[in-house]
Amino acid sequence: MVFKKRTRVDLARKTLLEHISPIERSERIPIESASQRILAEDIVSDINVPNHRRSAMDGYAVRADETTGASQSNPVLMREGVDCVRVHTGSPVPGEMDAVVMIEDTVTGGGMGGGGDAGEGAIVEIRAALHPGRNVSQIGEDVSRGDVAFRTSHQIRACDVAMLAMLGIMDVEVFASPKVAIIPTGSELAPRSGKIAEGMIRETNGLMVSTHIKQWGGIPDHRGIVIDDFDLIGTEIAASVDEGCDAVILCGGTSVGARDYVPDVIDTIGDLLVHGVGLSPGKPTALGIVSDTPVLSLPGYPVACLIALLEFGLPIVRKLGRMPEKPDRIVHARLGAKIASKIGYRTYTRVSVDGDVAHPVATSGAGIMSSVTRSDGFVIINEELEGIDCGDEVDVVLIE
Amino acid sequence: MVFKKRTRVDLARKTLLEHISPIERSERIPIESASQRILAEDIVSDINVPNHRRSAMDGYAVRADETTGASQSNPVLMREGVDCVRVHTGSPVPGEMDAVVMIEDTVTGGGMGGGGDAGEGAIVEIRAALHPGRNVSQIGEDVSRGDVAFRTSHQIRACDVAMLAMLGIMDVEVFASPKVAIIPTGSELAPRSGKIAEGMIRETNGLMVSTHIKQWGGIPDHRGIVIDDFDLIGTEIAASVDEGCDAVILCGGTSVGARDYVPDVIDTIGDLLVHGVGLSPGKPTALGIVSDTPVLSLPGYPVACLIALLEFGLPIVRKLGRMPEKPDRIVHARLGAKIASKIGYRTYTRVSVDGDVAHPVATSGAGIMSSVTRSDGFVIINEELEGIDCGDEVDVVLIE
Repeated sequence: MVFKKRTRVDLARKTLLEHISPIERSERIPIESASQRILAEDIVSDINVPNHRRSAMDGYAVRADETTGASQSNPVLMREGVDCVRVHTGSPVPGEMDAVVMIEDTVTGGGMGGGGDAGEGAIVEIRAALHPGRNVSQIGEDVSRGDVAFRTSHQIRACDVAMLAMLGIMDVEVFASPKVAIIPTGSELAPRSGKIAEGMIRETNGLMVSTHIKQWGGIPDHRGIVIDDFDLIGTEIAASVDEGCDAVILCGGTSVGARDYVPDVIDTIGDLLVHGVGLSPGKPTALGIVSDTPVLSLPGYPVACLIALLEFGLPIVRKLGRMPEKPDRIVHARLGAKIASKIGYRTYTRVSVDGDVAHPVATSGAGIMSSVTRSDGFVIINEELEGIDCGDEVDVVLIE
Repeated sequence: MVFKKRTRVDLARKTLLEHISPIERSERIPIESASQRILAEDIVSDINVPNHRRSAMDGYAVRADETTGASQSNPVLMREGVDCVRVHTGSPVPGEMDAVVMIEDTVTGGGMGGGGDAGEGAIVEIRAALHPGRNVSQIGEDVSRGDVAFRTSHQIRACDVAMLAMLGIMDVEVFASPKVAIIPTGSELAPRSGKIAEGMIRETNGLMVSTHIKQWGGIPDHRGIVIDDFDLIGTEIAASVDEGCDAVILCGGTSVGARDYVPDVIDTIGDLLVHGVGLSPGKPTALGIVSDTPVLSLPGYPVACLIALLEFGLPIVRKLGRMPEKPDRIVHARLGAKIASKIGYRTYTRVSVDGDVAHPVATSGAGIMSSVTRSDGFVIINEELEGIDCGDEVDVVLIE
C-alpha cells in the first residue's frame, strides 16, 4: 500500500463532507436539556408575550389625556385607585389606563418619588405630561401569537431555552446527536487498566477521541481494540455501521507500513476517497465512505491523531449534526522563536503562551504527547508558508 | 432604597472577586469524566513513556555501527533475525539493536521497500548508514518516571485525559464544581408548567441562569420562586448558604422600586458591596457577600438579567472553581448601522451577523427577550465611547 497522493486538507475535507448528509432522525426532549441541541421543528408561538399590557416602570398608571400640561411646577392632581393606579415594573396596567408616570415624576403624602402606595383615594401629584402608551409594554410586543420564534436547524442557546419557556413550551423536537463509533486498532495495544505486558502500549487515542466527540455534542461508541488484521478491521467497521453509527473513526493502522490495513479495508468494503493529506503531523490520515457512512482513519501517533481529529472529525460531527461552525477561541501573541514548516503542509506547532508571547514547545515528533499537554494552543501555519519568524504576530488556537 | 452609586463594571467585578476564595473541597473521579475539571493534585508519573525503546518507523532494527558506509550503491547485507530484525512503527526495538533503517532504505527478496517480512535468515540489503539512536524512541522520551505531568489547578483537556491514561492513571482528584443557588424573586412569577393566571408571568430567568451555570461547569441549585417579601428573601438566601451553596444568584427585585427588596436584604444580613453598575442593560445589578458567600442580584428584565450574568456570574463561577479565563468566540464584522450608547455605561448591543456585516437588532428595551434570541451576538461598547459609527469594524461576541 502506498499513499494515493497527498491531498490538501481543505480539499480532503470538502471531498468527504460532500458525501455526508445531515442526520434526519429526531427526538423530543425537555427544554431543560435542550441547550446546544439543534431544533428539528419551527417554533411558532401560540401566545402573546407579554400576554397583558405591562408597566415598564414603577409609578402610576394613568389616562394619558388627563396628564396634558402637567409639569414639575404645574402638577395635575389625581385620586389613587380612581384616576390613577399604583403599578410596579412588570405588573399589569388596568384596561382603562394607557400610560405610566414614573414614580420620580409623582408626589404623594409620602413625598416625591416616595415609593410606598399613597393609599386608596389619596391625592397623587402627577408632574409630567405623557403620550398614550408611554412606559407601557404592549401585548405581544416581545413575541406575538403566530410569530415564528425559531426555525428548524437553529442551535438552542441558554437565552433560547428561556424564550421557549416564556412561550409555555415544555419540550422540543431536536435532531439526534451523531453517534460515532471509535475503533482503536493495533496489535501492540492493551486495555488501559492494570499492568501491561512488555512491548505493549495502553490504548489511549480512543479515549481522547471519545472525549472530544462528547465535547462536540456527539455520542461516542468507544469499541474494543482490534488487532492488525484485515478481516477483523473490516468486520468491526461493518458492525459499527450496522448498529446505526453515523460515522466511524479508527485510530491507528492508517500509514503505509506492512501492518497498516485500514485504508485498504476501506477501499475494499467501501470507497477510499483520500489517503495522505498535507497535514503535519497527521499526514497518513485516510478518509472514506462505507455504506454511506463516513469513515475517518486517524494516525496512531497521538499528536497526529489529535490534529487530524480536529481537522476532520469535528467537521464530520458538525455536518451530521447540523451544528453551526464556530470561531475558535484565539489568543493573539508574538512568536518567541522562529518555527519551521514544510511548504504543502498545514502545520500545527504546539506553543505555550506567557503574557503576549507564544513559545514553541520543543518536540521530536508526533509520538510525543507531552508536546501537546505542555502546550496552551497551536499556531497553525498554512500550506503556502515556510515557517514563521520570531517576533511575528500569530493567532494561537487554544486547546480545549 | 436608592442606588448606592453607579459603579464601573470592571471595578464592581474586582470588588466582588476580592471577597471570593476558590473552593478547597475536592473529589476523586474517573478520568473518563475529568474533561474540563480542575486538578486538585500534582500528577507525578511513576512510569516511563514509552516504557521500552520503540521504533519510530517501519523498517529493520540494526546495530548502527554495522551500517557504516552503507548507501544505495553500496548496500550492507544482513541476515534477518540475526543481524537485523523487522520492526513496525511503535514496536519494541530488541535490546542489542540501537537504530532502525526505514523500510524505504532496504531491499529484500520482495524488492525495495517491499514491506513484507523477508523471512527468518533471509538476506536484507541495508542501503543507508545510521547513527546510533536513529528512528528509535528512547525510554521515557515522552514522560520520564518522576516527571510532573500536570500541576494542581491545571484544567484537564481531552489530550490531558489521554496523557493521564498513558501514565496508567485511572482516576484523579479534582476541585469540586461550584454549587450555585438560583433564587427567582417576584410576586408576579408563576411556575412554568400549565396555564398561568392573568397578570402573572412565567419564571424563566432562573432556567436561563441554571443553563448557563451548567454550561460554565457549575452545579445549579434552581430553587423555588420567592415572592417580594423582605423576610422570605432573606430566609432563602440564608438557607442556600446553610445548605452549602458556594454562591447565590437572585433574579428580580434588585432595582429601586417599592417591591425591590433584594439589595436591602443583602445589606441587612450581609454586606452590600455594589448596587447599580455602569452596564446597559443591567444597571440595577447588586453585588454582596452573605456569610462569606458571594451574592449576585440580577435584574428581572430578561435581557438585563442575561447580560449582568455574563459580566458577573461567569467570573464568580470561574474564581470559585479556579477555572482559567478564556477568550470569547469572536466574529469580526463591520457595523451595518450606527449604534448609540451612553458614556459611563458598558453597553451590549444585540446584532445579527450576515456575511461580514453586523446588523443591530432593533429593540425597545431590556424586557424584549426576542432582541437577544434573534441575535447572533453582542457588540460591546466600552464606557468611554458614545456609540459606534456605521461601517466601523467591530468584534461580535457570539451568544452561546
